[in-house]
Amino acid sequence: MDFDYSDKVKELQARVQQFMEEHIYPAETLYEQQVQEHRWDTPPVMQELKKKAKAAELWNLFLPESEHGAGLSNLEYAPLAELMGRSLIASEAFNCSAPDTGNMEVLARYGTEEQKAQWLAPLLNGDIRSAFAMTEPKVASSDATNIETSIVRDGDDYIINGHKFYISGASNQHCKILIVMGKTDAENPDRYRQQSMILVPMDTPGVEVIRPMQVFGFDDAPEGHAEIKFNNVRVPAANMLLGEGRGFEIAQGRLGPGRIHHCMRLIGVAQRALETMAKRASEREVFGRVMARHGGVREVLAKSQCEIEQARLLTLKAADRMDKVGNKGAKDLIAMIKIVAPQMACNVLDRAIQIHGAAGLGQDFFLARGYAYARIIRLADGPDEVHMMQLGRGIAAAYSA
Amino acid sequence: MDFDYSDKVKELQARVQQFMEEHIYPAETLYEQQVQEHRWDTPPVMQELKKKAKAAELWNLFLPESEHGAGLSNLEYAPLAELMGRSLIASEAFNCSAPDTGNMEVLARYGTEEQKAQWLAPLLNGDIRSAFAMTEPKVASSDATNIETSIVRDGDDYIINGHKFYISGASNQHCKILIVMGKTDAENPDRYRQQSMILVPMDTPGVEVIRPMQVFGFDDAPEGHAEIKFNNVRVPAANMLLGEGRGFEIAQGRLGPGRIHHCMRLIGVAQRALETMAKRASEREVFGRVMARHGGVREVLAKSQCEIEQARLLTLKAADRMDKVGNKGAKDLIAMIKIVAPQMACNVLDRAIQIHGAAGLGQDFFLARGYAYARIIRLADGPDEVHMMQLGRGIAAAYSA
Amino acid sequence: MDFDYSDKVKELQARVQQFMEEHIYPAETLYEQQVQEHRWDTPPVMQELKKKAKAAELWNLFLPESEHGAGLSNLEYAPLAELMGRSLIASEAFNCSAPDTGNMEVLARYGTEEQKAQWLAPLLNGDIRSAFAMTEPKVASSDATNIETSIVRDGDDYIINGHKFYISGASNQHCKILIVMGKTDAENPDRYRQQSMILVPMDTPGVEVIRPMQVFGFDDAPEGHAEIKFNNVRVPAANMLLGEGRGFEIAQGRLGPGRIHHCMRLIGVAQRALETMAKRASEREVFGRVMARHGGVREVLAKSQCEIEQARLLTLKAADRMDKVGNKGAKDLIAMIKIVAPQMACNVLDRAIQIHGAAGLGQDFFLARGYAYARIIRLADGPDEVHMMQLGRGIAAAYSA
Amino acid sequence: MDFDYSDKVKELQARVQQFMEEHIYPAETLYEQQVQEHRWDTPPVMQELKKKAKAAELWNLFLPESEHGAGLSNLEYAPLAELMGRSLIASEAFNCSAPDTGNMEVLARYGTEEQKAQWLAPLLNGDIRSAFAMTEPKVASSDATNIETSIVRDGDDYIINGHKFYISGASNQHCKILIVMGKTDAENPDRYRQQSMILVPMDTPGVEVIRPMQVFGFDDAPEGHAEIKFNNVRVPAANMLLGEGRGFEIAQGRLGPGRIHHCMRLIGVAQRALETMAKRASEREVFGRVMARHGGVREVLAKSQCEIEQARLLTLKAADRMDKVGNKGAKDLIAMIKIVAPQMACNVLDRAIQIHGAAGLGQDFFLARGYAYARIIRLADGPDEVHMMQLGRGIAAAYSA
Repeated sequence: MDFDYSDKVKELQARVQQFMEEHIYPAETLYEQQVQEHRWDTPPVMQELKKKAKAAELWNLFLPESEHGAGLSNLEYAPLAELMGRSLIASEAFNCSAPDTGNMEVLARYGTEEQKAQWLAPLLNGDIRSAFAMTEPKVASSDATNIETSIVRDGDDYIINGHKFYISGASNQHCKILIVMGKTDAENPDRYRQQSMILVPMDTPGVEVIRPMQVFGFDDAPEGHAEIKFNNVRVPAANMLLGEGRGFEIAQGRLGPGRIHHCMRLIGVAQRALETMAKRASEREVFGRVMARHGGVREVLAKSQCEIEQARLLTLKAADRMDKVGNKGAKDLIAMIKIVAPQMACNVLDRAIQIHGAAGLGQDFFLARGYAYARIIRLADGPDEVHMMQLGRGIAAAYSA
Repeated sequence: MDFDYSDKVKELQARVQQFMEEHIYPAETLYEQQVQEHRWDTPPVMQELKKKAKAAELWNLFLPESEHGAGLSNLEYAPLAELMGRSLIASEAFNCSAPDTGNMEVLARYGTEEQKAQWLAPLLNGDIRSAFAMTEPKVASSDATNIETSIVRDGDDYIINGHKFYISGASNQHCKILIVMGKTDAENPDRYRQQSMILVPMDTPGVEVIRPMQVFGFDDAPEGHAEIKFNNVRVPAANMLLGEGRGFEIAQGRLGPGRIHHCMRLIGVAQRALETMAKRASEREVFGRVMARHGGVREVLAKSQCEIEQARLLTLKAADRMDKVGNKGAKDLIAMIKIVAPQMACNVLDRAIQIHGAAGLGQDFFLARGYAYARIIRLADGPDEVHMMQLGRGIAAAYSA
Repeated sequence: MDFDYSDKVKELQARVQQFMEEHIYPAETLYEQQVQEHRWDTPPVMQELKKKAKAAELWNLFLPESEHGAGLSNLEYAPLAELMGRSLIASEAFNCSAPDTGNMEVLARYGTEEQKAQWLAPLLNGDIRSAFAMTEPKVASSDATNIETSIVRDGDDYIINGHKFYISGASNQHCKILIVMGKTDAENPDRYRQQSMILVPMDTPGVEVIRPMQVFGFDDAPEGHAEIKFNNVRVPAANMLLGEGRGFEIAQGRLGPGRIHHCMRLIGVAQRALETMAKRASEREVFGRVMARHGGVREVLAKSQCEIEQARLLTLKAADRMDKVGNKGAKDLIAMIKIVAPQMACNVLDRAIQIHGAAGLGQDFFLARGYAYARIIRLADGPDEVHMMQLGRGIAAAYSA
Repeated sequence: MDFDYSDKVKELQARVQQFMEEHIYPAETLYEQQVQEHRWDTPPVMQELKKKAKAAELWNLFLPESEHGAGLSNLEYAPLAELMGRSLIASEAFNCSAPDTGNMEVLARYGTEEQKAQWLAPLLNGDIRSAFAMTEPKVASSDATNIETSIVRDGDDYIINGHKFYISGASNQHCKILIVMGKTDAENPDRYRQQSMILVPMDTPGVEVIRPMQVFGFDDAPEGHAEIKFNNVRVPAANMLLGEGRGFEIAQGRLGPGRIHHCMRLIGVAQRALETMAKRASEREVFGRVMARHGGVREVLAKSQCEIEQARLLTLKAADRMDKVGNKGAKDLIAMIKIVAPQMACNVLDRAIQIHGAAGLGQDFFLARGYAYARIIRLADGPDEVHMMQLGRGIAAAYSA
């Protein structure tokens, strides 16, 4: 047992941090401005950042055990993801942003050579973006067996009909490919064999992007969270991933790393919020004393650090476990961080907002946007309650013998 | 002691509720659409709603003890404000929306006949809107003695220089008048005599509206929360309210009713959220059972109702106390509801969002917008912490003898 | 709607408060000492207090609408119960202590003339004590249908076999009568018709008091919470209350007032704790300032008052509703106070303990004992979770139409 | 970075766990019975357990870097302390119980050879017990500069006068030695140089043990928490530890390990509570389903595991840091675990109590006693608030530059 980062990680942290300070943070304002001008197009400054990150060999760091990525373990990647989480524009610059990372993992692991050549290569290269179409407005998607989109075999094709929303990334003009989850076998008595995943190019006829969904008033341009209708969308049978009825199997493999990445980024968001509020509290005076000298403010800082550090350690342990026993063996720890980290980030950000006053809710700080990110992650990839239910069931079983 | 509403109140509740059902709720979608088209202009549908409310004699209900208003006590008005709070567009329709209500009370109580004729009359008639300019970006405005805007006498005029933000309502084209708080006597050893309030017409040269500030991602058009610079703004000396150095005195009188109105509205928001989530939970199925049959969901509903009902009773008691002993005598209860109600509303809305899944964060439900409203009220008119500090000081004093 | 107590209540409050100050508080230490000497006997000082309270006509205040009691409504009695709750020895002095109050109500409402003559009269006179035997160690008694004690008809008698614990009051030598709940018809398909209540004199052969159960480390002498075994206990058939299979019906009628009394007393406990911590915080200095000047302490005082006042209003409203529409019509409000008040009291007491340091956990303050009382009420008469489940089910039903 | 215990630790865990299962758990009931008979004497069964532990070479495991102890690092010892924490009688059996451990560390680090021979040797051997006399009833001892006991030089002696309480362990007949903190130089302008620590044998004339203080009704016999008066207690000058005015210096060194040991034990208490409630919830049925199948119960289990695992990791990290940079360098992490672990344990135990019903508060489960232990640790060695204040101050300073 050892709580120090390895030398390899320390070196990477230093490089990522330096890149953040030299390139990312200074670009945040320009990025915002460019997005205001071209709402649904990746802004030019991002393309430049990506070039720089690739040149700095800080590229695809997320992809473990692979000829494609940096070959980092989850435990090695986690602290880097935390650093990236500190800026809402950083992950993409390093080609490490959701949902591309999860989609690339799916393609790398389950894709055919043709699928890899067509979609994985440009994704790894940062040339295109992708999305993952699972959530539906008409059913409680937290229970994924409810998902109703139909995928019906028709000769050499599949025909897809359905209605999805909150499809993150799909509003972006660079988004070229969707992984769509839906039912190929609605009558299968095993509810976990009804669903499949299939590749759907965005430009397929019948893919109708309705509108960008909001999160607390944010449309999160230029990626967005699209509402999409699939109207008799026809794709070749070769677009099926892994095989009919294996949607849950892919989802399991996909969701572990996705969850841990979100959690690590949220720890970065929370850490930056803590630093920001500590700074603010040291600069402003109320009732005759600098805020940081008020007991209540100190308690807020202390509590926040306690919560951040605990969530960080839990996430790192989950990463370590994933490396050692695989995603399935680490599923309890993954559930735990998914329960803990988003709520923790919400708590810390809420306190930071309170310390900043009205400005904390506004566009000049990252706090409100960070809160919106943390808040939606309490729902994405399974709401807190579902993870608690599954984790609790396992605990009861473990100690009831 | 009696917990039943009076017959007079019940009759008014019935009329307001009927008006809400017939006119307000059905207009919500159209209002949203019209605001999308003309961002900073009150939409036509609102002007129609106002006419209807005036015709229904549901107008200016907020104004107590006055020849101008409906003559309701705070206790009588409170349950009506709760009903109005259920829709984000209702208060304005009844000419009962912040910050106009507070500003009208200030003018009615402290205004000269000329000031009343010029500004109070059109406000009471719903012809114009107003704003209240207090918060500043450069100082911790939660301690109002920090406010730095200067108001300097120059012959028969005052010259105002300063920088304000989050001036709610001031982005609307119909906003014609500002009440500005600033220092006329920065050197006064009594920090509570340094500040004054003065009337500043929006079209005065030097009043520079910079941009609308956001709350999470909402700009709250068409009212907005403006950032405003005052660049050598010159107004006649007759625009001074009550007299130099009496800004805090006016603020005290103004804030009591303002706070209680916000709290009552937030109870309405929370109540509607509870009903919405109960309905949603009864319609959707997860893991083989309707959500409302899951124990965790029931706990969420029960907790929420307990919190709402308690906050409601506390607010009604504060209203009763204000009626009986005045705003000053009721200050502890006003502090208590300001601490309790916004946080309660945040809690209930957060749970309702969780029950709704991602959609709860989006634009199709009022939940995210309601959360943003509740969240900013935790800061507006004094953050929770300031009220707790003052209330706690009083409690310690009361029992230390 | 009116939040002021009536003149009648104010006069009674004044008299009870005066009695508390003159007789109760000064007797607390002596009571403790006498209990140390005679663990399971009501101490002499209590017998004197009872005489004085009877002489002051502050006796049986709890019993509404009856020739026996003071004829107060629940709304009138509630603030008096709050005052009594401030001292752990007060309720008995006024003959208003649980479980006697509930048992007297049962006897007054459902007892035959013989039962009343034999048991109600001496209880009303304060000559004997009683207990209510429901909870069982072997089953989850929070679901009262689980209760397993058997009550079997045998000629003109019933024979009772079972095992109960946490039978409050039954360890006291003055406890002469038990109301026992058990199954007379275990096979009845209507689970709510299986149970009956029957009177069992403590001196009946086969009633075996095993030991006093503890609450934290308190045995709560001289009343105690007895573990009791019923070994072929034979009582006359005339001891049956109301009729076989009507146990749940009696329980419903009994529990409403019992719950509200506990809640009102707990509000008194919490209020006294608030006053005690305010006083303590004003007397002690840490880190160069009186504790009450530290921001964190002020927040604790403020939060506590907010929570107490809200719980008080909710409880008063429940009392008002019980008076107006009966216990059944007020069941949701009764559930709400049962959820709210004990947890509130735990919270406030926990904070008061923290302010007092280690001494707060000890025998020189009422805080630890008050906490134990509040904590067990979170379980007695139905745990929080059961009330939330039932309340939440009702809310879902109410808004799902 | 590595989250697996080392092989050495795993082997020790296995041995401690085996000893717990073979010897400790089976002795718990007998221990309780023997304590009932001889309240303030270590019961015979404990003396046997100590012999067995010594024979098993599971003795003095706590003492790092020393010829006296097992030479384990904090990181190695922590998981063993967690195991010991699972039974309230285990630590003493392994000669690893507070306050002896801290006192032995003080003597080992700061004692003279004579002091070591006289007191450290029998403590290491488990022949005597000891106590640490710091807290005083008359002052807020959470700010240790308030401590008022006077230690006055008089020729070759010191004379001690003062009043202490909650002196854990001092009621036990085997307690032979006290480390007393008091003022030797009350006028020193440096408040952190006023205090000293001195050795006072329990049998010194003038050491008056008044009574055992309680914690929620528990007197924690046979160790107890004594109230002690020091009436002109005269000890040789050679009993001074380290030198006059160095009391704070010793306290700093003493408190780090003491705090981490308490935290590790509390994690063991909480872990056992989790297992106990999981088991209970799997055995009992309410409302037609086993408790563990109710959603609310599963949430409670899940939350508890999340909190336990986070606190465990934080404590292990603090241990690791102490090993690497010393107690002083690890002070922020030590503050963090002191804030986190006791509150976490209170939360988990409170939930376990709720799951167990009234029995959870009683003497047949370890839950109420465990709660009392966790609760007092929120006050011992500095209340939560003091640690938050100091930690918060440091955070503000760190990020304000």
